[in-house]
Amino acid sequence: MQRTRILVVGGVAAGPAAAAAAVRTDPDAEVVLFEQGVDVSYGACELPYLASGLVRDARDLVRHDASDLERSRGFSVRTLHRAEGIDPAARRLTVRDLASGAVREERYEALVLATGARAANGGVDGLEGPRVCTLRTLDDGTRLSEALRRDPTGHVVVLGGGFTGLETASRLAAAGRRVTLLAPGGPASDHLEPVLAARLDAALLRHGVAVRRERATAIRHDAGGPPLAVRTDRGELVGAGLVVAALGIVPETALGGSAGLRIGGSGAFRVDAGMRTSARGIWACGDCVEVPRLPDARPAWVPLAPVARQGARVAGHNAARRGRQAEERLRSQAVGYCARIAGLEIGSVGWTGASARREGFDADVVVVEHVSASPLHPESAPLHAALVFERPGGRILGAQFLGSSGAVARANVIVAALHGGATVSDLHEFDFAYSPPVAPALDILTIAGRAARKTLRQVRRTAP
Amino acid sequence: MQRTRILVVGGVAAGPAAAAAAVRTDPDAEVVLFEQGVDVSYGACELPYLASGLVRDARDLVRHDASDLERSRGFSVRTLHRAEGIDPAARRLTVRDLASGAVREERYEALVLATGARAANGGVDGLEGPRVCTLRTLDDGTRLSEALRRDPTGHVVVLGGGFTGLETASRLAAAGRRVTLLAPGGPASDHLEPVLAARLDAALLRHGVAVRRERATAIRHDAGGPPLAVRTDRGELVGAGLVVAALGIVPETALGGSAGLRIGGSGAFRVDAGMRTSARGIWACGDCVEVPRLPDARPAWVPLAPVARQGARVAGHNAARRGRQAEERLRSQAVGYCARIAGLEIGSVGWTGASARREGFDADVVVVEHVSASPLHPESAPLHAALVFERPGGRILGAQFLGSSGAVARANVIVAALHGGATVSDLHEFDFAYSPPVAPALDILTIAGRAARKTLRQVRRTAP
Repeated sequence: MQRTRILVVGGVAAGPAAAAAAVRTDPDAEVVLFEQGVDVSYGACELPYLASGLVRDARDLVRHDASDLERSRGFSVRTLHRAEGIDPAARRLTVRDLASGAVREERYEALVLATGARAANGGVDGLEGPRVCTLRTLDDGTRLSEALRRDPTGHVVVLGGGFTGLETASRLAAAGRRVTLLAPGGPASDHLEPVLAARLDAALLRHGVAVRRERATAIRHDAGGPPLAVRTDRGELVGAGLVVAALGIVPETALGGSAGLRIGGSGAFRVDAGMRTSARGIWACGDCVEVPRLPDARPAWVPLAPVARQGARVAGHNAARRGRQAEERLRSQAVGYCARIAGLEIGSVGWTGASARREGFDADVVVVEHVSASPLHPESAPLHAALVFERPGGRILGAQFLGSSGAVARANVIVAALHGGATVSDLHEFDFAYSPPVAPALDILTIAGRAARKTLRQVRRTAP
Repeated sequence: MQRTRILVVGGVAAGPAAAAAAVRTDPDAEVVLFEQGVDVSYGACELPYLASGLVRDARDLVRHDASDLERSRGFSVRTLHRAEGIDPAARRLTVRDLASGAVREERYEALVLATGARAANGGVDGLEGPRVCTLRTLDDGTRLSEALRRDPTGHVVVLGGGFTGLETASRLAAAGRRVTLLAPGGPASDHLEPVLAARLDAALLRHGVAVRRERATAIRHDAGGPPLAVRTDRGELVGAGLVVAALGIVPETALGGSAGLRIGGSGAFRVDAGMRTSARGIWACGDCVEVPRLPDARPAWVPLAPVARQGARVAGHNAARRGRQAEERLRSQAVGYCARIAGLEIGSVGWTGASARREGFDADVVVVEHVSASPLHPESAPLHAALVFERPGGRILGAQFLGSSGAVARANVIVAALHGGATVSDLHEFDFAYSPPVAPALDILTIAGRAARKTLRQVRRTAP
């Protein structure tokens, strides 16, 4: 009897996690992972730190190499192999060996797509060339750090106000570069209420990052003075020795799309709660799929490593179980972003006020300020928070925290609260621990819950 | 018409919070708080830091003085007034003015008892005298810091291995004293699994605190060499210039007990979910009452400031509402302890394995070790955790965290998880935020949840 074959397409985070889950669920299956690049498992979120020199060696970011995964996780890895086509009816995957150019048909019983996402170009012309870098692969990170070493100007223009752009800009400024960040909506505007984003903006300025609320439209490589000039939508030209394009990412769905897999409104694969695509025998996970999102289960594209890992576990298990074990389901995701940028710790979970209203929630927001510990203690630092909640019931929709420390801690409390379906009154009534040097008598979580509850009561009192 | 009178007995945390809640609920009532001491509102948990000199001035710990509370919160405060008797049928409180000695009968419609707790003596003889200090009141803190200034030996013996004793010992050692801690069960044994307590023990030794697993039986004040000698249950004599007795506390129920109020198994007042005692017209809150405790609602005595505050809000509201507004109910409490001791941040929430089993839970424990952030980043530090859970369903019963940072943050996630009724599988599946410098790819919460889930599955697989 032939061994059951489970194929996985794509490395980095989701693919290896799905393959490992498949082996755990069916140790008798042959599980093979195909990755078109050289590296199969690395810390993609560390790339801004590699580029800026905080992490010294690209090899430090490699979590597992192929032989390591084969030995410890029990699945085979074929790097430099690109999947080029799927025949869902025949359960065949077409794979090209990029070294030899040879093309093979690989049979499968179950296929898991973890094709990830690719850098978006944001409509900017001239993103090619040796002085323009993106940050998606280990090679990108190495390339950027080498380009930085060769850059005579010391001036870097970063395109994009998302977390990757902000982390990169902040780290490069800390490493002594002159940095201009082009963020048309301002920094982290998708993840922070305007009043918190303004604090981040000010911190960036203090840390040597000049934020311009302009959109890059083109990069000129033939500028007279500096090597590059970035043209903005205000018609200005910003000189640069180097450009880092962090213009966001888009789901990579070409392979599955060509096989007719259903694509959701976000542009990523639409899957069910078991991570099953619209084609029999094909599951998907990682940055190429939509996932259910809290507080309900509406499909959303959330390209985050923790979400990818959760989805991969479910997809890998379900691809391997074939009815013999209970199906796993991906629970709705809280969606937490965090970072350290310009000396500030930032945690943002769930919806912002604006994004919640765009989704149709009757959302309100309170913003509060407190301390991370008792103010008599040296560790105490200011902390700012926004709590996003639904009227009239007070269900928590999201929260954001910003301060020199303690922000991510509170964000993860909100992750648990969102998963538990907590309201702002619940948050107010949770008995968070207190000890002067490490936690204030009233936590900012308690204060935010109380402020939101008060807002809701006033709304009820003044309702017609 | 006479104004409704709501009387509150007791200051510090619960009493003022209950009085403020009563005013908010019934702004027309006359609310009067009686406190036998000089200070009505101060940070009692800061006393170890006052005694050790980290907090320089006792006045810094005063949160509100009487006139401040009267002005901002709208209730009257009578300090140096001791409540000496209650006539529940007549709704009369007997109060002595300690300055003049005058005794008055105060009528009330509603009475809130927040009589707190007092220091236990642990069966130790000779706890009196100028060189033996406890840490309950502001005066205690000032007295200890003055005694330290006058102590010629530099050697302090701290009695008691609970958090107050540990914080005091750790801070005094940091301030240059030679410190011996007598803790018969070892440090924090009520709040940590043995393997984590052993780490704390080692850290204390590194920080200059000698922990002896002995119980003090008597203090001799006439010792030949040093001013004091502490005799232990092993018959040894430990010389000391000063003794700090942190032998725990017991609920102060004399006033209410003499009026026939029901006392629970813990020795504290038994109240219903609305904080109502067994006597009509009398509510109670703070360190003198039992509260419902998660994961169910069994009554427990939990003398903690956050719990006191939650109970005070409920008691004050209900004492003032008298049927016109909905009754508030105290939700079951997660019970979180935290501290910084000997360079370690410690967070302990809910039940330990041993305490859960004593309560009749079929409890299991996993212990795991991880890092507070990606190991490539300078902020990353080792973190240790224990997760306590119920067999066979996996309901979380408690958790403990210990490390140089990030421990309290995780403890508060468990507070939210306990309130949400989460299982270890839930914890494993929560999508905690990730960013290399501030949060690792897999949080120790995720790792602990996974380990506990695996343990439960093995139990199921090997069950008869």
